[in-house]
Amino acid sequence: MTEHARVLEQLPGHLALRHPAPADHPRLQQALAGWWDGLGGEAGALQRQLLVPRLFLQHFADTSFWVERPDHTLHAFLIGFLSQTDPRVAYIHFVGVCPEGRREGIGSALYDRFFTTARAAGRTQVRCITSPNNRNSIAYHTRMGFHLEPGDRIDDDGVPLQGDYDGPGLDRVSFVRKL
Amino acid sequence: MTEHARVLEQLPGHLALRHPAPADHPRLQQALAGWWDGLGGEAGALQRQLLVPRLFLQHFADTSFWVERPDHTLHAFLIGFLSQTDPRVAYIHFVGVCPEGRREGIGSALYDRFFTTARAAGRTQVRCITSPNNRNSIAYHTRMGFHLEPGDRIDDDGVPLQGDYDGPGLDRVSFVRKL
Repeated sequence: MTEHARVLEQLPGHLALRHPAPADHPRLQQALAGWWDGLGGEAGALQRQLLVPRLFLQHFADTSFWVERPDHTLHAFLIGFLSQTDPRVAYIHFVGVCPEGRREGIGSALYDRFFTTARAAGRTQVRCITSPNNRNSIAYHTRMGFHLEPGDRIDDDGVPLQGDYDGPGLDRVSFVRKL
Repeated sequence: MTEHARVLEQLPGHLALRHPAPADHPRLQQALAGWWDGLGGEAGALQRQLLVPRLFLQHFADTSFWVERPDHTLHAFLIGFLSQTDPRVAYIHFVGVCPEGRREGIGSALYDRFFTTARAAGRTQVRCITSPNNRNSIAYHTRMGFHLEPGDRIDDDGVPLQGDYDGPGLDRVSFVRKL
């Protein structure tokens, strides 16, 4: 706990960057329910909550990052890991920035921090996915230098979709970026 | 793919043990929906499906195991990983045996295989969790030498529960076993 809570860096606006700890999970769950402007309704919120069980904060804390305000409320987070199976790959599982904190570069700072960590671990590519209905995420990853991977079909906006990628009805868009 | 599909061991009844590959994910999803006797209804099936996204077959295949029949239908599986943050810990995320294949020792064979893999990687303890309503799972882990970890309350059967462990309403029972 003590090591997890160590501040790695001071960011603008008195924000502090550190690795997350299991005790942060309830605050992460609140963010997953509340920060996506209700994307996908109640089912969408539940889906986001189930996608980040506590195990990520227990077992992948050292490649995940947590940004909090001086009062310890959550401002932004990135949950990522190093692929255990493919030594070339680092994987970003989930990223969130609080609605009032967007367009201030915090998300990019988290991605850059993860890229640096992944490079230091010898990784040469970063992978991640998003939901086809999350247009902000698709645009953001493209700006961050990610390439869209081929899908099994193309939607009306030209986005390549991988149908049923994560299960029946759970289509995904897949990204890769060289490090 | 070739390496993933390599058979590691022949089990009784012409069953073959190998590591899973991403292409196995649709069959895994069908099993998650169908194998738990409808535990938790439709919400329970969706919860199980969301708990095992494709990333586990992509990035934790080398500590996961897949048992299939000669016709390549799925018989049993174990999804596990080595904690990246805690070098003592190996973690079992999800295990399933098809309903018609139970009480034949296949589940125990998968656990033993994972224990051996984890020991070879220098791990000294295995951790896992289950849902409080999954009484079969609680009894099974106890028989397999796992200890129940303390909870924040005890249910009517004396089982220690960790309330909201994985999010609001998602109570869990937590197990640990020495290797």
